[in-house]
Amino acid sequence: MKSYKALEQRFRRIAAVNGALAVLGWDQSTMMPEGGAKVRAEQIATLSVIRHEWLTDPRLGDLLGEAETQKDQLNEWQAANLREMQRQWRHATALTPKLVEARSKAVLNCEMVWRKARQEDHFKSFATAFHPVLELTREVAAAKAAAFGVAPYDALLDEYEPDGKAATIDALFADLGGFLPAFIDKAMARQAKKPAPLVPKGDFATETQRQVGLRFMKALGFDFRHGRLDVSLHPFTGGVPTDVRITTRYHEGDFAKSLMGVLHETGHALYELGLPKFWRNQPVGEARGMTLHESQSLLIEMQVCRGPEFLAYAAPILRKAFKGEGEAWSADNLARLYTQVRPDLIRVDADEVTYPAHIILRYRLEQALLHGDLPVADLPHAWNDGMQTLLGVDVPSDSLGCMQDIHWATGSIGYFPTYTLGALAAAQLFAAAKEQDGSILPGIAKGDFKPLLHWLRKHVHGKGSLLSTDALLRAATGKPLGTAAFKAHLKSRYLN
Amino acid sequence: MKSYKALEQRFRRIAAVNGALAVLGWDQSTMMPEGGAKVRAEQIATLSVIRHEWLTDPRLGDLLGEAETQKDQLNEWQAANLREMQRQWRHATALTPKLVEARSKAVLNCEMVWRKARQEDHFKSFATAFHPVLELTREVAAAKAAAFGVAPYDALLDEYEPDGKAATIDALFADLGGFLPAFIDKAMARQAKKPAPLVPKGDFATETQRQVGLRFMKALGFDFRHGRLDVSLHPFTGGVPTDVRITTRYHEGDFAKSLMGVLHETGHALYELGLPKFWRNQPVGEARGMTLHESQSLLIEMQVCRGPEFLAYAAPILRKAFKGEGEAWSADNLARLYTQVRPDLIRVDADEVTYPAHIILRYRLEQALLHGDLPVADLPHAWNDGMQTLLGVDVPSDSLGCMQDIHWATGSIGYFPTYTLGALAAAQLFAAAKEQDGSILPGIAKGDFKPLLHWLRKHVHGKGSLLSTDALLRAATGKPLGTAAFKAHLKSRYLN
Repeated sequence: MKSYKALEQRFRRIAAVNGALAVLGWDQSTMMPEGGAKVRAEQIATLSVIRHEWLTDPRLGDLLGEAETQKDQLNEWQAANLREMQRQWRHATALTPKLVEARSKAVLNCEMVWRKARQEDHFKSFATAFHPVLELTREVAAAKAAAFGVAPYDALLDEYEPDGKAATIDALFADLGGFLPAFIDKAMARQAKKPAPLVPKGDFATETQRQVGLRFMKALGFDFRHGRLDVSLHPFTGGVPTDVRITTRYHEGDFAKSLMGVLHETGHALYELGLPKFWRNQPVGEARGMTLHESQSLLIEMQVCRGPEFLAYAAPILRKAFKGEGEAWSADNLARLYTQVRPDLIRVDADEVTYPAHIILRYRLEQALLHGDLPVADLPHAWNDGMQTLLGVDVPSDSLGCMQDIHWATGSIGYFPTYTLGALAAAQLFAAAKEQDGSILPGIAKGDFKPLLHWLRKHVHGKGSLLSTDALLRAATGKPLGTAAFKAHLKSRYLN
Repeated sequence: MKSYKALEQRFRRIAAVNGALAVLGWDQSTMMPEGGAKVRAEQIATLSVIRHEWLTDPRLGDLLGEAETQKDQLNEWQAANLREMQRQWRHATALTPKLVEARSKAVLNCEMVWRKARQEDHFKSFATAFHPVLELTREVAAAKAAAFGVAPYDALLDEYEPDGKAATIDALFADLGGFLPAFIDKAMARQAKKPAPLVPKGDFATETQRQVGLRFMKALGFDFRHGRLDVSLHPFTGGVPTDVRITTRYHEGDFAKSLMGVLHETGHALYELGLPKFWRNQPVGEARGMTLHESQSLLIEMQVCRGPEFLAYAAPILRKAFKGEGEAWSADNLARLYTQVRPDLIRVDADEVTYPAHIILRYRLEQALLHGDLPVADLPHAWNDGMQTLLGVDVPSDSLGCMQDIHWATGSIGYFPTYTLGALAAAQLFAAAKEQDGSILPGIAKGDFKPLLHWLRKHVHGKGSLLSTDALLRAATGKPLGTAAFKAHLKSRYLN
């Protein structure tokens, strides 16, 4: 146990530095004046180097080896903690410092070029800067694949979705990719027969929007002794589990943009707030991965808050807060409004029906890019083809096409699929929760989210990284991750 | 030069950790929800340990020794930088880890006990917790005195006022202590003959107070691309020179409390913002010490903003912003109001005339405590005696007497005198500035602070830690720090 206990001490220090980095990052996006950027970047870089030094300290490797031989003395949580320590160590030590540095530089440059290229719709300049990022990401994938004994794409995926496998995703996405185009047509046809939703009009004062957001956060179970709501350009969930910081951005003409964003981030926040208290500061106490994290935000935003029960409870509150009048503020109208289906160009604006098509396209293309089956120069063509096949959408420019997202520019390959894996998991978890506890849905209709939160705490949040995503889903829902619950959800919401 | 350059690299990393600590501290006082406290404390402790490890790394000592032998290759700024590196090294290495830890624990406990004891006016329980703090602070003083080759009190003072000497302070405070009692009587007599100032009445909305504060900050030269104004329980200036964070606290019944606080912190902030750009991240680029820091806040708040020129400019702005009516809002009335003299119990509420008496008392008592000439049990008696002699005030309780300040509870001996040294320096610097540049005072009267800021940038802010406080004052004013300018200022403001 001595080696294991020494490891806990070391990872406790690492968690403290991670937490400090989280505060610095949150402040950078919410509070920091522009003139503070350069020095802040140096603070963040310095703490990141400290963390990397600690994670690659040879003595840490020795301790991991020693603890592994004494594994039979560990309980279930400690063993899982050791497994997650080993995962972090593997990721940190798989790469030479030279490769890490070269990739950081290439990414920094590509991110800058991407901002400009997207603005000016100039794919060629993006391609030039992206080439070295892709090359170096391939080297990273190769090095990690060799070290972990998995395929290159899976090695990248492991960073976002531990133990994730492309083979599993391939099967799920093949199924979904076959289902979606026809389903979208049916949903659109059905939508066309219903009255077009009315859009609540008004200048919606920022402070009122904020109060409404806070009210729903509180109702959903966000504990303000352990978190805050602030403003940033791009919404995110940051901080640490004892102090979770979510952000939004207000649009005076449309309160729903901020509101749905706040509900989405609240889903992320509830996960963080519900992580196992005893394991704070240890790897096993962290959220399991991007799939489950996204499942929690989508469960709250998509499954719960765009559903008729929630909107029946929320509509009168919204009407009163914004002094709304008329049919536009009815629960029925809001339900139609917040579940509109429209195949379109931009992923981040997509509805839950068409969103997976955006992801499937990116997943296929990033695999082809990584494996060298798709030259960077051919990306726009492949993109536009895919948008036509999957969504029937014509792409007028690369800015609105393959350059719309930042992910690839930063070398984040393996990230995209977790959005849709999260959507599948959200549907599957919510279906199981409703089935196992009949008070969840009636609770939502009255604004009582305790039964739902109780179920999520028990089956998801409180598990931390004890189980794999797959094992957690099996334990909670009785099945491995599949498409059935998601398809059933779509049919029930969009074809009835 | 190689050793020196290596030192610069090391101190650059230390500065990054210092900056991260500044952000964590600012956030803790302004943004953090209560439930984040424990984990935040661990983040701060971890970064503090990193800093201490870096500062006490034997290799750093070797480099300092090597650089010292090659000092003739350094220019003036580099040599001063090396001197300040050596000072930080001396402070960090003078104490054994055991002593540092024992003192931290004693201080943590004493701070907690002090809060309760002050509330309950129970000196005995404070004394019990303060005893070990004083003992351990004596050990610190002895260890540093031996290492630096100075007297114990001077060794403590060096942390707040580098190269400060009790002998110098003794002389200044003997002079001032002799002058003040009779002067206070005269100022009170003169004040009694003038009409009593009217207090502007109203509920002063927080947002209006904030806007007024921002307006004056901007006029004084605060650059909002490099800083912010926020709210905290106790006002402070934090952050880093590229991102200076000042705070205030609003009282709806009295806008002046926040306004004067904001102006005071703006003085501190202007110093930080004006530190030499080239030497950011290096010890020589830091503010010189507490005396000069306090001189900058007092120069702005006391010398400038409570003066007739500033109030002639500010009164109409305040009247308009708060929709004030009548004589209470005249510049003359505000000048009388903001320069009221009243000997009283509490240091932080004291006016500039009686404030030094509070400090002289504390300075004498903390020396006696440190040297063992005053047993802790006798502190209340000595305190009450001193308040009677220096200010003619009866102390009704220890809560309003010797337990009012947190400083001693935290082992901060050597800090108090810098407040009054700062007041002396503020008067001396402002007198010299006005003498050297005739446009400063007319500028202030029109709300143009550029001439003043220009002078301060050149003679104080831009010098960083290049010179000692004494050398800087000699260069800027032609004289060592003295009482003459301060006494002249008091006579001119309170006897004319």
